[in-house]
Amino acid sequence: MGVKTPKESHIVMTEIVLPNDTNVHGNLMGGRLMYWMDIAAALAAGKHCNAPVVTASVDNISFESPIKLGNVVHIEAKLSRAFNTSMEVHIRVWGEDLTHQYKYKSNEAYYTFVALDPNRKPRPVPPLQPETEDEKRIFDGALRRRQLRLILGGKMKPEDAEELKALFKKE
Amino acid sequence: MGVKTPKESHIVMTEIVLPNDTNVHGNLMGGRLMYWMDIAAALAAGKHCNAPVVTASVDNISFESPIKLGNVVHIEAKLSRAFNTSMEVHIRVWGEDLTHQYKYKSNEAYYTFVALDPNRKPRPVPPLQPETEDEKRIFDGALRRRQLRLILGGKMKPEDAEELKALFKKE
Amino acid sequence: MGVKTPKESHIVMTEIVLPNDTNVHGNLMGGRLMYWMDIAAALAAGKHCNAPVVTASVDNISFESPIKLGNVVHIEAKLSRAFNTSMEVHIRVWGEDLTHQYKYKSNEAYYTFVALDPNRKPRPVPPLQPETEDEKRIFDGALRRRQLRLILGGKMKPEDAEELKALFKKE
Amino acid sequence: MGVKTPKESHIVMTEIVLPNDTNVHGNLMGGRLMYWMDIAAALAAGKHCNAPVVTASVDNISFESPIKLGNVVHIEAKLSRAFNTSMEVHIRVWGEDLTHQYKYKSNEAYYTFVALDPNRKPRPVPPLQPETEDEKRIFDGALRRRQLRLILGGKMKPEDAEELKALFKKE
Amino acid sequence: MGVKTPKESHIVMTEIVLPNDTNVHGNLMGGRLMYWMDIAAALAAGKHCNAPVVTASVDNISFESPIKLGNVVHIEAKLSRAFNTSMEVHIRVWGEDLTHQYKYKSNEAYYTFVALDPNRKPRPVPPLQPETEDEKRIFDGALRRRQLRLILGGKMKPEDAEELKALFKKE
Amino acid sequence: MGVKTPKESHIVMTEIVLPNDTNVHGNLMGGRLMYWMDIAAALAAGKHCNAPVVTASVDNISFESPIKLGNVVHIEAKLSRAFNTSMEVHIRVWGEDLTHQYKYKSNEAYYTFVALDPNRKPRPVPPLQPETEDEKRIFDGALRRRQLRLILGGKMKPEDAEELKALFKKE
Repeated sequence: MGVKTPKESHIVMTEIVLPNDTNVHGNLMGGRLMYWMDIAAALAAGKHCNAPVVTASVDNISFESPIKLGNVVHIEAKLSRAFNTSMEVHIRVWGEDLTHQYKYKSNEAYYTFVALDPNRKPRPVPPLQPETEDEKRIFDGALRRRQLRLILGGKMKPEDAEELKALFKKE
Repeated sequence: MGVKTPKESHIVMTEIVLPNDTNVHGNLMGGRLMYWMDIAAALAAGKHCNAPVVTASVDNISFESPIKLGNVVHIEAKLSRAFNTSMEVHIRVWGEDLTHQYKYKSNEAYYTFVALDPNRKPRPVPPLQPETEDEKRIFDGALRRRQLRLILGGKMKPEDAEELKALFKKE
Repeated sequence: MGVKTPKESHIVMTEIVLPNDTNVHGNLMGGRLMYWMDIAAALAAGKHCNAPVVTASVDNISFESPIKLGNVVHIEAKLSRAFNTSMEVHIRVWGEDLTHQYKYKSNEAYYTFVALDPNRKPRPVPPLQPETEDEKRIFDGALRRRQLRLILGGKMKPEDAEELKALFKKE
Repeated sequence: MGVKTPKESHIVMTEIVLPNDTNVHGNLMGGRLMYWMDIAAALAAGKHCNAPVVTASVDNISFESPIKLGNVVHIEAKLSRAFNTSMEVHIRVWGEDLTHQYKYKSNEAYYTFVALDPNRKPRPVPPLQPETEDEKRIFDGALRRRQLRLILGGKMKPEDAEELKALFKKE
Repeated sequence: MGVKTPKESHIVMTEIVLPNDTNVHGNLMGGRLMYWMDIAAALAAGKHCNAPVVTASVDNISFESPIKLGNVVHIEAKLSRAFNTSMEVHIRVWGEDLTHQYKYKSNEAYYTFVALDPNRKPRPVPPLQPETEDEKRIFDGALRRRQLRLILGGKMKPEDAEELKALFKKE
Repeated sequence: MGVKTPKESHIVMTEIVLPNDTNVHGNLMGGRLMYWMDIAAALAAGKHCNAPVVTASVDNISFESPIKLGNVVHIEAKLSRAFNTSMEVHIRVWGEDLTHQYKYKSNEAYYTFVALDPNRKPRPVPPLQPETEDEKRIFDGALRRRQLRLILGGKMKPEDAEELKALFKKE
């Protein structure tokens, strides 16, 4: 399996906020946005491994700028790191008010997917080779995020998380 | 504002997995489940504070057992801790195959909401008093989860997170 | 097949009224509510018989208090009586305005379902044993409702409906 | 307000059964059909009174022939009787398999609507003058159906329902 | 295969404009209307040939009178001409404001469908015999519209389009 | 109003074909695709003029390669020509099967939008300056397409359409 770059799995999704996507404040509901992000991220993971994928986990997401009814939602997703059978996808979201020519960062997130073979068992995925500085920085952070996921999922003890421990020991 | 208990914000939601909720494997898409969890959690937060709420953040979620087409989705949400103007909600999800009488844990998560006043500014929420052992354990863990959210959101330095540091320093 | 109680088929569903669920008055459309009630009732029937079910009939429903946009819809369903291959489900619906802490009865109804075997033929369902006073009263009324359904469906002559005739002959 | 005929409120609706409208048997869910019937009936009532309307009640519906995935749903609705501020609408539903050229009666029902003035209070509606034999027969049955609705809604005592009592007293 | 008339494939569809169907002006979005027109036209084509059909092309559509939120959409479709394996369907759309008793022409269009056999290959369809003056006029224009489709689809040279050339050569 | 380039209004939309988007063959319905194309094109037009827009017309579309259930739909839209108050948008659509790494052209189309001022009257839009060879070719063809729209909409006589007449007079 040949090495692939983040660019090769890059996906752009554009949606418009319709009435049924909003809460009583006329803002995009968080859950609707997570639904779109899941689809964008699944497509990026599918482009990387050329196999069916399933969502394995979603990292902490914080919603900063609400996106208003009638505004445009821009979602960009691309692979941030490939592990053996799983892939971490980095997603960035912007809102845009076309009339006022105002585009604003809404949030970003990491979703993890597993590739499946025809028997629905995990199968290997191609390695990822980051190219830009930004991609390399995000690639490097993936081990730390993965340890956090394992600890939060009860599959690793905090004291074994070398990458994370380093963070907390800074003086 | 009187103290409230988790029981007072307890919400039960039941959904059925329809074709459009599934991926090509016939399993419930992760994004659709996060959408339902967001609504259930927002209702629990709204019941606690009796005011409009917006999703502020979602903690790490891992999807363990996929829920199949035609199965039932059970979602339970109740307040796990109230802060000044924000509320952490604990959500548990089960799948159920009615024909085979098989009910299985799918996943659990913490969503955080902010209460808004009529000018859309954050407003105070009632304090929460946990009652059961389970509620107390989850209440106690909320400070640690909150520090993690602040660090992941870039609003706290890891070395200032006393609750979290304790975790990593165990020998 | 062992006897079951109404409690064993009890289902709670919670929905929020979104813009597309409302008519021009901003009230939940009757048809959307009947759609949700059908799903809740089908789940209760499925829990009782552990088999696929189909809607056979719906009794007279009257809509008293309209449920407003943004309000919460609470739907509770549980078995009211089991016949040979069919099940009557009792459904109660409340609306709730979380901000004003106001919960109001919206309506109630009886839906009837038939259990199907793998060849899509009706199959026997477990008997129902009501427990509470309320459940017993509703259980007892089921014969009368069933005669009414048979008359309205053209499958029984009014003069043969002993249960119903008693009602009209009171002096 | 001039008298109107049933023909003037006649509405035809045609839908196709898509995957998300079906249960696990691939048949149209009863709740989805009641949703479409509610919209068709509301349009017929709106055409009769030229004012906003709300669903007041739905009479007993029995589902006889299931409608299959991919089949066509034909819904016809027209006024069956006008009362002071309320209107009874008669709805007939057929399924059709275009490939096999097979059209079958699915069910029929009566929905009742109330006309509203700009303050959301009930307002008078035009009288209805049935024309065909079929319309006259259905018009005549409306009093009996109305007594039944009032009894089932707890607003009339069975012994006061002269129209219905006559039915049960036949020897 | 016996000859059929346009009347035999006549389909009437009625929809109501709900919030999610509208743009920020509260008008029905063009794309939603084209979606409904496609379904109505596919049903008319399916009625004519009694076989599965797929959309082959859509002719120029212009949207004249916008249809408002809460208004009724009336769509009528019937066959305008049958070719060997394809069918042209003529669609007319009206909006209606029930309260103001105002019905207005919205637009009209021609969609073309191909009939498929069980192997998904094009199969012959019955010939069409127009009856009314209007149907004959539309039938006659079909050749001109077809040449235009072929030219626009790059399958015919403008100079070979005899029917169209006649139009441009009028003095 | 400054001149703008096609690149400035370029929009990329990515969707996945879900069960409810498909016909009985498991292919994306034409009407659903036209709905997505309308949204993508409206966003491109809105980006160009920074004002609300409404769909004025859609040119002939032919559907060549059906897009399958589970495949990805790529839609690209950008301005092809600006007139006084209207804008023509060019849309290209591809399907992609991620597992088989197969991407195929599905169709292309031109949608025309009108920009509206706050009183819903047409308002001027910025001029468009094409940059690439492809953009220039498409820009040049816009006059011909516009004459065709005017003729098809009954607003121009064929004999006055100089651009189109030239096409048919080639020897």
